[in-house]
Amino acid sequence: MARTRLTAEREAELYAAVLDLLREVGYDGLTMDAVAARTHSSKATLYRQWGSKPELVARALRNNKPVSPGQIDTGSLRGDFHAMAARNDYCQMEKDSALMRGLFHTVHENPDLRQALRELLIEPEMEGLGELLRRAVDRGEIAADNPALYYVTHMLVGAIVARQLIEDRPVDQDFLVSYLDAVVLPALGV
Amino acid sequence: MARTRLTAEREAELYAAVLDLLREVGYDGLTMDAVAARTHSSKATLYRQWGSKPELVARALRNNKPVSPGQIDTGSLRGDFHAMAARNDYCQMEKDSALMRGLFHTVHENPDLRQALRELLIEPEMEGLGELLRRAVDRGEIAADNPALYYVTHMLVGAIVARQLIEDRPVDQDFLVSYLDAVVLPALGV
Repeated sequence: MARTRLTAEREAELYAAVLDLLREVGYDGLTMDAVAARTHSSKATLYRQWGSKPELVARALRNNKPVSPGQIDTGSLRGDFHAMAARNDYCQMEKDSALMRGLFHTVHENPDLRQALRELLIEPEMEGLGELLRRAVDRGEIAADNPALYYVTHMLVGAIVARQLIEDRPVDQDFLVSYLDAVVLPALGV
Repeated sequence: MARTRLTAEREAELYAAVLDLLREVGYDGLTMDAVAARTHSSKATLYRQWGSKPELVARALRNNKPVSPGQIDTGSLRGDFHAMAARNDYCQMEKDSALMRGLFHTVHENPDLRQALRELLIEPEMEGLGELLRRAVDRGEIAADNPALYYVTHMLVGAIVARQLIEDRPVDQDFLVSYLDAVVLPALGV
């Protein structure tokens, strides 16, 4: 059966409604019925388009990340990192830190959501970051055998979680740029 | 009123029972009645000794960390870091990763618990880590103005969270030593 494409605008509208519902009722309380009602669409359309609730939620969260790190290419690693920090998803994440903390727990209890987030959100981001780092290795900015290459995601996750959890402060562009310059670039020998 | 000291053994027994209950019923389900019943003590004793449920839980969690990083003093930063990684709290944390993930969410919803954990667990650990780092600065191993000094906790939290969340693998001593050598020491210029 042919899958009718939604317009990008309509899709963004649907994703925004899903994130609103997530904030209001949480993942467990979010139903396809509620999404259908809120967006004036039919449940059949939602299932045809997204297959399942975990996939719909993962795609709605991914829609906050308009640019993959792999698409960033300023010619230097520092430039790429700073452009990454300037992507508006991190500002979104700041507004959504309560949402993210709630999801952290939900993900633990919902293997289907965990798998959808891993496939649709985390893996594409990590692949994009991998591309960005490979280009830096090819340019000779990072030694190919630098052991910190494997841990770039760990360093970034740490910045985001510790900032919110320990410092109770928002993850904004200034913080990310400062952390990238103080920690990630020196660890990579740049 | 004089506060009767419990023996260290009895205290450890009580803390172990609190952690067992946390795993079984979660923070919200854990009552002082249940702790009293499980440990054959009176509720009056529990309140006299710990004041409140958040304080009891924070002290039980802290009891997993027998050595403060400030007490570690091998003579070199690398040695101190490796000794830190060998403390058995991280192995405990591995066994307790489900517990920790549950708490992450609970902490968000319970300001009293958040404050108790901050005062009794996080701040003493961070102060200890600060002492350990200050000694390295005094020895001339780290430049006093190295901007990564401010981010050591962020780097460590990242290692622990990303290892469990993204890699779905345990935080063990080998992982921590490898991360400290690949990331934290180079970022500090060591």
